Amino acid sequence: MRRITERLKNKNVTEHVYKIGALVIGFLFLLLIFATIRASFFGNLDPEKHIYFEIVFLLLLAVLAEVAVFYFRQQTVVVLMIFGILIGPGFLNITWDFLHSLNLPFQISAEAPVFFYHEEVIHLFAQLGAIVLLFKVGLHSKIEKLFSKENLLTALAGIVFPFVAGYFYAVLSGGSFGYSMFVGAALTATSVGVTVGILKEMKLLQKKFSEIIIGAAVIDDILALLLLSAVTNIVDIQGNAVASLIRVSVISTIFLLGAIVTGKYFIGYIDRKEMGTKRLLLSLSFMLLLAYVAEVINLSAIVGAFLAGIILNKSKNLAILEEKTFALELVFTPIFFISLGLLVDVKAVVAFFIPILILTALALLTKLIACGGMALLSKLSPNESLLVGIGMAPRGEVALIIASIGLANGVLPAAEYSVISAMALLTSFIVPPLLAYFIKRSTNLSDA
Amino acid sequence: MRRITERLKNKNVTEHVYKIGALVIGFLFLLLIFATIRASFFGNLDPEKHIYFEIVFLLLLAVLAEVAVFYFRQQTVVVLMIFGILIGPGFLNITWDFLHSLNLPFQISAEAPVFFYHEEVIHLFAQLGAIVLLFKVGLHSKIEKLFSKENLLTALAGIVFPFVAGYFYAVLSGGSFGYSMFVGAALTATSVGVTVGILKEMKLLQKKFSEIIIGAAVIDDILALLLLSAVTNIVDIQGNAVASLIRVSVISTIFLLGAIVTGKYFIGYIDRKEMGTKRLLLSLSFMLLLAYVAEVINLSAIVGAFLAGIILNKSKNLAILEEKTFALELVFTPIFFISLGLLVDVKAVVAFFIPILILTALALLTKLIACGGMALLSKLSPNESLLVGIGMAPRGEVALIIASIGLANGVLPAAEYSVISAMALLTSFIVPPLLAYFIKRSTNLSDA
Repeated sequence: MRRITERLKNKNVTEHVYKIGALVIGFLFLLLIFATIRASFFGNLDPEKHIYFEIVFLLLLAVLAEVAVFYFRQQTVVVLMIFGILIGPGFLNITWDFLHSLNLPFQISAEAPVFFYHEEVIHLFAQLGAIVLLFKVGLHSKIEKLFSKENLLTALAGIVFPFVAGYFYAVLSGGSFGYSMFVGAALTATSVGVTVGILKEMKLLQKKFSEIIIGAAVIDDILALLLLSAVTNIVDIQGNAVASLIRVSVISTIFLLGAIVTGKYFIGYIDRKEMGTKRLLLSLSFMLLLAYVAEVINLSAIVGAFLAGIILNKSKNLAILEEKTFALELVFTPIFFISLGLLVDVKAVVAFFIPILILTALALLTKLIACGGMALLSKLSPNESLLVGIGMAPRGEVALIIASIGLANGVLPAAEYSVISAMALLTSFIVPPLLAYFIKRSTNLSDA
Repeated sequence: MRRITERLKNKNVTEHVYKIGALVIGFLFLLLIFATIRASFFGNLDPEKHIYFEIVFLLLLAVLAEVAVFYFRQQTVVVLMIFGILIGPGFLNITWDFLHSLNLPFQISAEAPVFFYHEEVIHLFAQLGAIVLLFKVGLHSKIEKLFSKENLLTALAGIVFPFVAGYFYAVLSGGSFGYSMFVGAALTATSVGVTVGILKEMKLLQKKFSEIIIGAAVIDDILALLLLSAVTNIVDIQGNAVASLIRVSVISTIFLLGAIVTGKYFIGYIDRKEMGTKRLLLSLSFMLLLAYVAEVINLSAIVGAFLAGIILNKSKNLAILEEKTFALELVFTPIFFISLGLLVDVKAVVAFFIPILILTALALLTKLIACGGMALLSKLSPNESLLVGIGMAPRGEVALIIASIGLANGVLPAAEYSVISAMALLTSFIVPPLLAYFIKRSTNLSDA
């Protein structure tokens, strides 16, 4: 009897030793993790290794966004973009200046932490996120509905009206002819990524108004490209504007229709057998190839990815394709939305507050009136037309591209470039909450 | 009647017009694609856009490898590495020189095409491929089996024997003390990626000999790190070698055991609810975080990823985790194997043929004898022991790291660096066919 209790006691002792050991090791491990993270923020780690930290940081922000969405009842897309602003260099520098001005009793590092040393890589990841997002959206869309009369009319109105409004606004505020043309052009192209993110999150992609938004945005992208080509040629004067315009339209048409025509054969091959590694890789290559060619001919990469999606929509292996590529969306898409926030130049927004506000209001109103009006003419309900108008408002990357060309040409001064790029991003920021609000209101109305 | 036939005829005409139109558009589209690809190889496209091409190119190579595997009955891993050599700058330049020397009747571009302008990005993708591969392998492994007696003995023998052999070989060929220490150290660490790729492809990961290879390779990595720390300290003389050695061993131990101890709580959290977006992102962040910390403390990133895998092996959502992250393996892992081929410096291999051959033979034989012998002592069959010996032979990235530190320290001349790195890669090239051959032979034997 005594022996047994002794043995039990001994066993307890070993167990206790193990437990304490585990506790100590666990504590030291957490200390190691924290030390590494601290060094990643403030220290000077090997930049080649730092990239892993940057990816982890972005993924953890995405996790945090999921938590915030749950507690604050906001859209994930909005939360991700706000996080992007908060960790961007502009906002951080302001925060740091503020902290230093407080004369705190404890010391903080002299310089604001730099989160990202590998901007090109993060930018690429963000781009891949947008590509995968639009590819997935394409997978749920039908080709037949892309070039419908409603889409064409909505797109056309959404180009002409903002262009004219932007042009006259710039002329009235004392701009030259070339400058005004660029401001007009920058107001034209809808960037569909943000709207699609919201519609997807609210599971409304299959609605009629969502189809019009996506279809019209794709056509908008092409029309804006034509306009850009015309504007640069007219502004430069050198070169034959008409010839260049025809060239651009022919190439874009060949690209779009050609992909759809030859896509049939691609689907035929893909569907001949089950979707194994080879066919999955081939489908992803197809997506990236179309995105790449779209970039090369100066359309945006997401147009190519969307095109690849609607072509593969006809595959009978659609479900497998969707399921097996899930991880790409999981990892890359949040990075796209965070990077939109990262791009916001907080200092410029503060400095040019008034002109940015005016231009953003102009950008919102013109799309709202033109596209919403067209949707109303296409016999959508007033509520749905409103959603089309709002959904078409984000400008995003195409406006940024147009503005950067104007900057490079010397037509846009740096200050104006900041104003236009701030407008492009602000429209992307305003749309998500607006859209979410009006969608909820309209469902409340229809429930009543 | 006449009306109907006329209408039919008209319908036929429209159909024909459509068909011819589609044919023309399709042809022009293919022309556009080919022109873009040609420009990507030989032209000067916007480098920012070129990155998409580079990824497409790598993915299509992976598709081609799948086809080649089917026709040539080789391992995918081997085919991918060979493709990597073929598109690498070394081999291409030789091919181009040869083509020019032929005085062909048609003209070829003066310079060999450059496939990759974004080496850092491709390198990162390759690294992520290795991380995901080892993570997935970890998901199928059990912690309890990691630090078994067999693994420890195999790892220890696989460090001591190659180090001593490398040291004396270098001394005998007239090397200095420091130089010989570095050659010895470079021969020690097993790089497990290639072996695991083969074992996974042949569905042998669950075998006893696979477990020994993987476990011993992880321990090898840690021991090699300790050795490297000792060698650099002894060579530099400055600094206290013993103190540094203790520091490195303590940190590695804390990292390994600490991750396992605290991992239990992580699993607890992950398993509390179903595996949604949040928990999946968290698991991937966990993988990348451990890979990152492993890199920071100078272990290799794949050790951290493997560790994250074996920790998550205990999750009851293992199947979902496996399934939902499939795309990452699909895209990144082939890039890892291709990049191993890309790294081979064909000119150096030709120039230093004899010393590379000797060092590679030494590298193979020492691991074969030491690790195979230990496996035999651990009561594995002679066949299985042979497989352990071969499987432990690839050196890969750790040897490259050790050699590059030697180069930076000035202890290794550039020529010797080329010899060691060629050895590191050649061992990775020789192992796959050897391993496949002996596995097939042993199954044939057991079938008989």
